[in-house]
Amino acid sequence: MSLPVLVIGNKNYSSWSLRPWLLLRHFGVAFEEVRLLLDTPAFAADVRRHSPTGKVPALHDGDVRVWDSLAICEYANERWLDGRGWPADRAVRALARAAAAEMHAGFVALRTQLPMNSRRTPDAYRWDAAAQADIDRVQALWRQLRAAHGEHGEFLCGEFGIVDAMYAPVAIRFDGYGVAVDDTAHRYMQALFALPAMREWRAAAAVETESVAATEALRSPR
Amino acid sequence: MSLPVLVIGNKNYSSWSLRPWLLLRHFGVAFEEVRLLLDTPAFAADVRRHSPTGKVPALHDGDVRVWDSLAICEYANERWLDGRGWPADRAVRALARAAAAEMHAGFVALRTQLPMNSRRTPDAYRWDAAAQADIDRVQALWRQLRAAHGEHGEFLCGEFGIVDAMYAPVAIRFDGYGVAVDDTAHRYMQALFALPAMREWRAAAAVETESVAATEALRSPR
Ligand SMILES: N[C@@H](CCC(=O)N[C@@H](CS)C(=O)NCC(=O)O)C(=O)O
Ligand SMILES: N[C@@H](CCC(=O)N[C@@H](CS)C(=O)NCC(=O)O)C(=O)O
Repeated sequence: MSLPVLVIGNKNYSSWSLRPWLLLRHFGVAFEEVRLLLDTPAFAADVRRHSPTGKVPALHDGDVRVWDSLAICEYANERWLDGRGWPADRAVRALARAAAAEMHAGFVALRTQLPMNSRRTPDAYRWDAAAQADIDRVQALWRQLRAAHGEHGEFLCGEFGIVDAMYAPVAIRFDGYGVAVDDTAHRYMQALFALPAMREWRAAAAVETESVAATEALRSPR
Repeated sequence: MSLPVLVIGNKNYSSWSLRPWLLLRHFGVAFEEVRLLLDTPAFAADVRRHSPTGKVPALHDGDVRVWDSLAICEYANERWLDGRGWPADRAVRALARAAAAEMHAGFVALRTQLPMNSRRTPDAYRWDAAAQADIDRVQALWRQLRAAHGEHGEFLCGEFGIVDAMYAPVAIRFDGYGVAVDDTAHRYMQALFALPAMREWRAAAAVETESVAATEALRSPR
């Protein structure tokens, strides 16, 4: 059997790619990585061979081709994780799924105005009230999830799982844009950043040389 | 045990509410319905009691409170459907999950420019190229899914399931705005509209008297 292939974008920018990559790596699933460079002519030419949406991430596992970050996580959960991607308790699992799905469909202002840029360091760039409302909602949700299971473990539902993979890009955004966060968020972000798989992703992002102009333009004026 | 409660919006307009409602009703899950009227002061006042996002749908099942349409479908699948919400075959299930997740995160132009309005009948109102690209992508996806399992059954993956619940609001949009569709889409939409649960929803939408001005304003000029 050949290894599954995960097609991703630049590690520095591709928030959707980080989700399944982190899940697979954290759980020790062996896979081959194909990286396509966002915002280049080659991307447009290559991506359709891998993904019917023209977007990354996409996973190929033998004949199975799954696109969309959340669907890839659900597939990986069934195929390689024996269900460990979601909390074992049904009520906690329901919360984790709600949080993951809310992330998947929502937070448009946060995603647009604070796009992931792992190399970024805070400056005076600021966002509007809609993005701040998203930031506040994320933190309220993190508090709710941490409280729901008696605050065991370091992650949103205790152990690291799919819900954390879905919010890992948000932690990188909060960090890089200098978002003021509450204690729960601070501790949670530290736990995410300490994960070996997360460190590996960010170290690779740090040495990527390609850049996406529109994202880099989001700087405070000098 | 008291019945689970599904909190929804107006049947005429609430595309996200239709998804879990249709799934529960189609599979004969008994539930109580609470309808909140979108775009009214009462909605804003009531919704937070039911949903931490301030949005519908939300499900209460004893102590479990799940928000977000996709998460509610996943919960219902585990809790009441014994997994019948997704195709039994792993590869087909992966496709169904990818299609559902793509719908959940995407199709912004389609959702914005052709919002669900079950009572609507076609007129000369038209949309831009981005919305048309979404319409084309939906139909390509429907063809892919139908072809992937040898075209058995009438629904996207054979029998009706969560993926169909996710696309049912799109069928209502295509119908009401007079979108030109291919044969696969036409047959699929007829199958959806013939479902007893779908007929019940649309019949109720037809006699609702409240209206959402912004959605009703999307008419061709006389
Ligand atoms: N819902 C999709 C969204 C994927 C997505 O938007 N990916 C971006 C990169 S992070 C992309 O491929 N953009 C390229 C393009 O749209 O041309 C998912 O969850 O995987
Ligand atoms: N991702 C959510 C979105 C729900 C949503 O946007 N619901 C709309 C009605 S269809 C709503 O409650 N809007 C009211 C508001 O935003 O004030 C889901 O899938 O349930």
